[in-house]
Amino acid sequence: MRHFADRLADAVEQKRSQLVVGLDPFPDRVSDPLSFCRGIVDAVADYAVAVKPQSAFFEVHGADGVRAFEETCAYARAAGLLVIADVKRGDIPTTAEAYARAFIPLADAVTVNPYMGGDSVEPFIAACRREGAGIFCLVKTSNAGSADVQDLELADGRQLWQHVSQLVDTWGRDVLGENGLSAVGAVVGATYPKEVGAIRGLLPRSVLLLLGIGAQGAKPKDVVPAFSAGRASALVSTSRTVIFADSPAAEARRLAAEIWALSG
Amino acid sequence: MRHFADRLADAVEQKRSQLVVGLDPFPDRVSDPLSFCRGIVDAVADYAVAVKPQSAFFEVHGADGVRAFEETCAYARAAGLLVIADVKRGDIPTTAEAYARAFIPLADAVTVNPYMGGDSVEPFIAACRREGAGIFCLVKTSNAGSADVQDLELADGRQLWQHVSQLVDTWGRDVLGENGLSAVGAVVGATYPKEVGAIRGLLPRSVLLLLGIGAQGAKPKDVVPAFSAGRASALVSTSRTVIFADSPAAEARRLAAEIWALSG
Repeated sequence: MRHFADRLADAVEQKRSQLVVGLDPFPDRVSDPLSFCRGIVDAVADYAVAVKPQSAFFEVHGADGVRAFEETCAYARAAGLLVIADVKRGDIPTTAEAYARAFIPLADAVTVNPYMGGDSVEPFIAACRREGAGIFCLVKTSNAGSADVQDLELADGRQLWQHVSQLVDTWGRDVLGENGLSAVGAVVGATYPKEVGAIRGLLPRSVLLLLGIGAQGAKPKDVVPAFSAGRASALVSTSRTVIFADSPAAEARRLAAEIWALSG
Repeated sequence: MRHFADRLADAVEQKRSQLVVGLDPFPDRVSDPLSFCRGIVDAVADYAVAVKPQSAFFEVHGADGVRAFEETCAYARAAGLLVIADVKRGDIPTTAEAYARAFIPLADAVTVNPYMGGDSVEPFIAACRREGAGIFCLVKTSNAGSADVQDLELADGRQLWQHVSQLVDTWGRDVLGENGLSAVGAVVGATYPKEVGAIRGLLPRSVLLLLGIGAQGAKPKDVVPAFSAGRASALVSTSRTVIFADSPAAEARRLAAEIWALSG
């Protein structure tokens, strides 16, 4: 399979969109995740470049939910969408290898957690090399609690998220696509605009997956600096404002156009 | 359900064991995870206090694997073993709530990742309060790569794992059992004996789940300081040396007795 960042850049140009729609079938609002997600995929396929199914909202239904997750991924890919499996896994190398094998065939990219360090992420990067996949590593997340660990001040004066940015840059250095972007991207909370700009500077080759737009309070204009490395160098993910809108298609189209205009 | 730490302490006393057997059905060695894990459960039920199924080795088989995970958990509980679901999840609060609902009914305890901070762990702690469950939060993990993030030196001179220890102590302070131990425990790599002792000091009320004994190179004698808060204040998890032994029962009995003797 072609390099993830090149496939992504093609899709961004073709659809004039950097919109990612988070498939979050909250168990209290959605009784049948598969049918719900199929409906959203049908509605947004022309306006979004990717969907991001959140594994937890499928796993909460047990094995049947995981089957729905698999089928949702396949359905979205058949509709011409890239799939980012939001699983945030991280484990010792032999275990991480099993996680990579579990998710890479289903999805074009996965989210990973850096707490356990480079050897826990390496099996996912190997899958990027081998199968043209991508990963997005948590750097500075959108929730309030992210400060507890990610904002800690280090002995050299930097904050932890700056150090993790540097790790991500190192991890992604030898998996570049033809367009110069790496298969190793970063998850950044759009709820922290100052950090978005700083992380852009620290990660000149990484695609930033920006979360927290919409229900969590961030606005598209908060993430403009993320696009300074090119139209395909950042993705903007939103979920509730699209998937529970009266017209998910109209809301996706509106948001995609707004972000595209800001990214130029 | 009764408090996790009290149920654990009862099991430790009754079985004279702090042994946890990691159920790691490596996909290259095990074709049928459920049948394999049932065999191990039958063999070790008298000698181990808990089993720790590693979710990745089930998820790699897709929805069928997740069904096997569910059935493995049920089978182990029916055999009188506590179940620690090794899932290392961590996500924003609404998502973490779904993960807690996915795993707490299946297992007595789960492992969690602290990178996203207190609000990502809180839904799991709520499940501890509500359902008598336990959690084990990653603090200092057994792999070599753990140094990349967990050993970072902070501005106040401590290392990151010391700060995370303090967070874990705070998170667990108001979920104490009758025996004084908290429902919020910590995952510590027995491969780092110096850190085991230090974390014991920082977490006087937490059960330490010690990993890395056996195939990863640590020995039972490396973790003696972990037991200074009581016989039930630490668990020693091992996997490959038991589950792939000629006689898993004999190896589990031997290890349980060795650890019990060291813990007194």
